[in-house]
Amino acid sequence: MDHTTSPHGYIHNKDDYLKRLRRIEGQARGLQRMVEEEKYCIDILTQVSAMTKALQAVSLGLLEEHLSHCVVDAVAAGGPEAEVKLKEASDAIARLVRS
Amino acid sequence: MDHTTSPHGYIHNKDDYLKRLRRIEGQARGLQRMVEEEKYCIDILTQVSAMTKALQAVSLGLLEEHLSHCVVDAVAAGGPEAEVKLKEASDAIARLVRS
Amino acid sequence: MDHTTSPHGYIHNKDDYLKRLRRIEGQARGLQRMVEEEKYCIDILTQVSAMTKALQAVSLGLLEEHLSHCVVDAVAAGGPEAEVKLKEASDAIARLVRS
Amino acid sequence: MDHTTSPHGYIHNKDDYLKRLRRIEGQARGLQRMVEEEKYCIDILTQVSAMTKALQAVSLGLLEEHLSHCVVDAVAAGGPEAEVKLKEASDAIARLVRS
Repeated sequence: MDHTTSPHGYIHNKDDYLKRLRRIEGQARGLQRMVEEEKYCIDILTQVSAMTKALQAVSLGLLEEHLSHCVVDAVAAGGPEAEVKLKEASDAIARLVRS
Repeated sequence: MDHTTSPHGYIHNKDDYLKRLRRIEGQARGLQRMVEEEKYCIDILTQVSAMTKALQAVSLGLLEEHLSHCVVDAVAAGGPEAEVKLKEASDAIARLVRS
Repeated sequence: MDHTTSPHGYIHNKDDYLKRLRRIEGQARGLQRMVEEEKYCIDILTQVSAMTKALQAVSLGLLEEHLSHCVVDAVAAGGPEAEVKLKEASDAIARLVRS
Repeated sequence: MDHTTSPHGYIHNKDDYLKRLRRIEGQARGLQRMVEEEKYCIDILTQVSAMTKALQAVSLGLLEEHLSHCVVDAVAAGGPEAEVKLKEASDAIARLVRS
């Protein structure tokens, strides 16, 4: 990417998110190894909890950025778009809380 | 593994768990692609929720098997081991509920 | 209250929230009765899950209103207050997701 | 109840559970007061999170007791009842994790 268009406004943390997601991918591979080698179930569950927490942190981070950029911009611009963005964000929050 | 010792008792579903974990690994890669291409934040969050649910289903499945095999065997054998296993399972459940 | 000042902007749904919270209070009393009468544990757990879901729905509703009114107003007004509100909302979301 | 039959085996902690549930009932009343007085939304959300955590602790405690008594007894007695109890406990855990 030789120019920094950032349609959705989170490019400045992109590398951080990519790093965290690669680590999560690695955890998914580690879990396969543990199941393959029939590690103790409780140890596998501990790893799954750690991975879930890491995923949760990614989504909370993305959501915070989304609110601070995308939603704020829509609100500043005014019009019906702001309401759409707010509804969309609330729905995403509900999915996160319930998952 | 040339003989099917199954110290932790979940070998009969192993392939199913491996398949699900490979899919989860694929979701982690898909998320990296979405961040790389700066997909819309809400769409990324939807994917993270789906991945979290898939992980949750894996842990609930593993936990159910753990209770049905490992914990039941310990209880049947009696002695202090049963109590240890029950405490361990309860702690794992608490981690799951809180993550 | 003889005039409708609404410093935090959710007065139009107030009766609905009060009704839902009274029902939740009733669920808490029902649970005490179940424990008192030593109802079957699984049935008590089912009630606790229902109550947790009801509470969750209350918080998601309050959060949505908070974003649509309080946060949007702060953003529209501009200045450092907007950032404070956004951080505060993100922290509340994180607590909800983790609880 | 003039004799301490304990069909579901958690009577020894009954008073503790009742105390915790009364406190949760009090939290539900406190929330109504906060909404009535239109307290700041974020403060209400903080209280809801505290109440959710208290409820969660109750269910984890009940579940641990259920596993240690009811499920263990069924396993010790053997027969199809054990399997039924295990399935039931797993379903309750799933509801907790998902709520």
